[in-house]
Amino acid sequence: MKINGIEKPIDLIVHNGKVLTMDDQRTVIPDGAVAVAGQAIIAVGRGTDFAQWQCARTLDARGGLIMPGLINTHTHAAMALFRGLADDLPLMTWLNDHIFPAEAKLTPDLVRVGTRLACAELIRSGTTCFCDMYLFEAAVAEAARQCGLRAVVGEVFFDFPSPNYGPIDKGFEYAQELLARWKHDPLIRIAIEPHSPYLCAPELLTRAARLAEDHDALLVIHLSETRVEVAQIQEKYKRTPTGHLAQLGVLSPRLVACHAVVLSEEDIALLAQNGVKVSHNPESNMKLASGVAPVPDLLAAGVCVGLGTDGCASNNNLDLFGEMDTAAKLHKVQRLDPTVMDAATVLAMTTREAARVLGLEREIGSLEAGKRADLIVVDTNQPHLTPMYDPVSHLVYAARGSDVLHSVIDGQVVMENRRLLTLDEAQVLADARQAAALIRPSK
Amino acid sequence: MKINGIEKPIDLIVHNGKVLTMDDQRTVIPDGAVAVAGQAIIAVGRGTDFAQWQCARTLDARGGLIMPGLINTHTHAAMALFRGLADDLPLMTWLNDHIFPAEAKLTPDLVRVGTRLACAELIRSGTTCFCDMYLFEAAVAEAARQCGLRAVVGEVFFDFPSPNYGPIDKGFEYAQELLARWKHDPLIRIAIEPHSPYLCAPELLTRAARLAEDHDALLVIHLSETRVEVAQIQEKYKRTPTGHLAQLGVLSPRLVACHAVVLSEEDIALLAQNGVKVSHNPESNMKLASGVAPVPDLLAAGVCVGLGTDGCASNNNLDLFGEMDTAAKLHKVQRLDPTVMDAATVLAMTTREAARVLGLEREIGSLEAGKRADLIVVDTNQPHLTPMYDPVSHLVYAARGSDVLHSVIDGQVVMENRRLLTLDEAQVLADARQAAALIRPSK
Repeated sequence: MKINGIEKPIDLIVHNGKVLTMDDQRTVIPDGAVAVAGQAIIAVGRGTDFAQWQCARTLDARGGLIMPGLINTHTHAAMALFRGLADDLPLMTWLNDHIFPAEAKLTPDLVRVGTRLACAELIRSGTTCFCDMYLFEAAVAEAARQCGLRAVVGEVFFDFPSPNYGPIDKGFEYAQELLARWKHDPLIRIAIEPHSPYLCAPELLTRAARLAEDHDALLVIHLSETRVEVAQIQEKYKRTPTGHLAQLGVLSPRLVACHAVVLSEEDIALLAQNGVKVSHNPESNMKLASGVAPVPDLLAAGVCVGLGTDGCASNNNLDLFGEMDTAAKLHKVQRLDPTVMDAATVLAMTTREAARVLGLEREIGSLEAGKRADLIVVDTNQPHLTPMYDPVSHLVYAARGSDVLHSVIDGQVVMENRRLLTLDEAQVLADARQAAALIRPSK
Repeated sequence: MKINGIEKPIDLIVHNGKVLTMDDQRTVIPDGAVAVAGQAIIAVGRGTDFAQWQCARTLDARGGLIMPGLINTHTHAAMALFRGLADDLPLMTWLNDHIFPAEAKLTPDLVRVGTRLACAELIRSGTTCFCDMYLFEAAVAEAARQCGLRAVVGEVFFDFPSPNYGPIDKGFEYAQELLARWKHDPLIRIAIEPHSPYLCAPELLTRAARLAEDHDALLVIHLSETRVEVAQIQEKYKRTPTGHLAQLGVLSPRLVACHAVVLSEEDIALLAQNGVKVSHNPESNMKLASGVAPVPDLLAAGVCVGLGTDGCASNNNLDLFGEMDTAAKLHKVQRLDPTVMDAATVLAMTTREAARVLGLEREIGSLEAGKRADLIVVDTNQPHLTPMYDPVSHLVYAARGSDVLHSVIDGQVVMENRRLLTLDEAQVLADARQAAALIRPSK
């Protein structure tokens, strides 16, 4: 068939649904369809426009919603193995007595098993791209690639020796190898990820920032997650964590600040002036009792904010639909204002804004001709989504990850009718149970 | 077969799962089963104990969790028709421009359609009993009964004429008829439900309390949901809403106070001293920006608290799994303490404690021989519930209503393998869409 006079083969048409493009105009096409050629979207339009097209494969949206795949801007995917290992404890007890001992047992193989488990959950709940920080990230990249998931991954850096690479110089070598290995991959991007201002000395922070700059890579950091860490940094450097990073010259548009809970007005201004992006993780911040990030203020200052789940040990799920619901409600009650964080704002934070957070806005985040074909279909033919006055309201306040019917990433159908096509789910679960027996042998 | 020497027919065995009894000892039976005779649980034990039993029907839990059905202590079920009609608005705009005009169109038939829609969602998300307050409650009772759901229902009373019964004297007649009609029903209980201290004059409140007393019925009221209403009552009566009810003699163990957000220390003491029960509705309180109920303080004072979703217009779903997750997290961040509202406490608030809220603790809320057979099976053989170190953690922090596989209410299987057996789901959805066209004709 011809598009703009050019003959192109069509590989996939997703049809019979309402298309939420999430483009600049937030165009909605009531009886719409999306056509895919190779890895890219070739056309988005009315179903009738596509009726005569020939293509190898079709996906029936069954009258549901066709929308961009969701983007999770902060995860520790392999921690899926630690979900429910310990909860409801003081932070230091939880870390020292449960999480750190479990992490001491990690191997590349366990990280691979945990990441595949997370990938299964991510796909099943409508996420098509995630930004990960953890140990043994070579295994994370390989696992995500095999599952057909889009991912930004980076090995975590800190001052003390790593269970993976040992001393920090080896950490930089490890990151360099990752950068070389995945340089031209369509799905995997490598980021540089110093853990946080409180676990990274100034030299490490500036060295990491330079490496990111040299490779035009994302720089990902935990920033101002808790009051305790802010007090520590202020004691040590006489500045807030954000002020500290500003002074080091680390703030830039390539920086993704995860959590960003405890911020001063000056911090918010610094983040905005420097084009820093923020990953907002409300459920983790609630469960760990860290606090409520000042997201309405960040948005008002013009900061780009995306949603993230954080790891499964502090959430305890990777469902971005639930995270949207929580984000929309949490700020309302905190501000005692039912108009803040409306559904449209929150939906953008898992789609077009999340893509901007990861520097991928030219590739993903909306359904437009020329972008990569990352899309999901939400089955709205269900009691909790019927009737539907406003699809955006339903997606944020009523839908759940389990409502996702089909998922396509980079043109590949990774889930059809809730069946995973790139993973052997039974094997993933069996491997996870075996790994759990190693992590907590007594159970 | 013989149990304690008595020959009894067994109608149903639910087997091959881990049984969370939620009894006084929180007994968990790893490879357990539940046997049902008629409407009641006849035995709970290890699967091997039941291997030789003959029975008409079995339900395979497939290695998942067998647990009490969840109990929703505060709903306006028929508002399922208004889900997503309007969101993110100032309270008075939302009510006056959207909800009240929609409610003015209500008829018994629309309430029946809306309640059936809610029942489909309730069953599909693991709820087996709900406590409802709304208009045209005769239609709610009939619909719930037809769906096989257990329900406590009551017509709402207020000072101004009702779209259902007109003047309040007719309202009391309507309630009397409901009491007579459902007197000996195994599933439906009638409650007396004055809307709130701000919409009900003192005479109405005391008259309603007397009627409840005369019929040994539950008395259900909205109490201290917002700061505005508390200020109004204090202006008018020189007391808090709770103090006002105390002075009228309306506080008692049969009173269910819904929301209970804005409470003083004295209010909490009054509720505790009088044995008043509280329905906690965190998601609605968040979405409407009402505030955070002092639930840890209520629990510390010995007040019995159950969870409720409130209506779909202010939540916007009826999924008690999501409500548990939110309840557990909200109080942690509000108190900046990760140890408050642990998972076990929250799970009790949808099972055994919720049963106490509704005065049904001798009938439901735990799986024990002699209680009514209200139970659900949760499918844990899924990526987001594997591995499972602690089932209680998973139920609160990771599971969703869509994980419920089977549901049994009063001995009747109402959902098997996620297929509704007491409702024609396609018809329910078609009716709901038709109703929506009446409610908002322009769309």
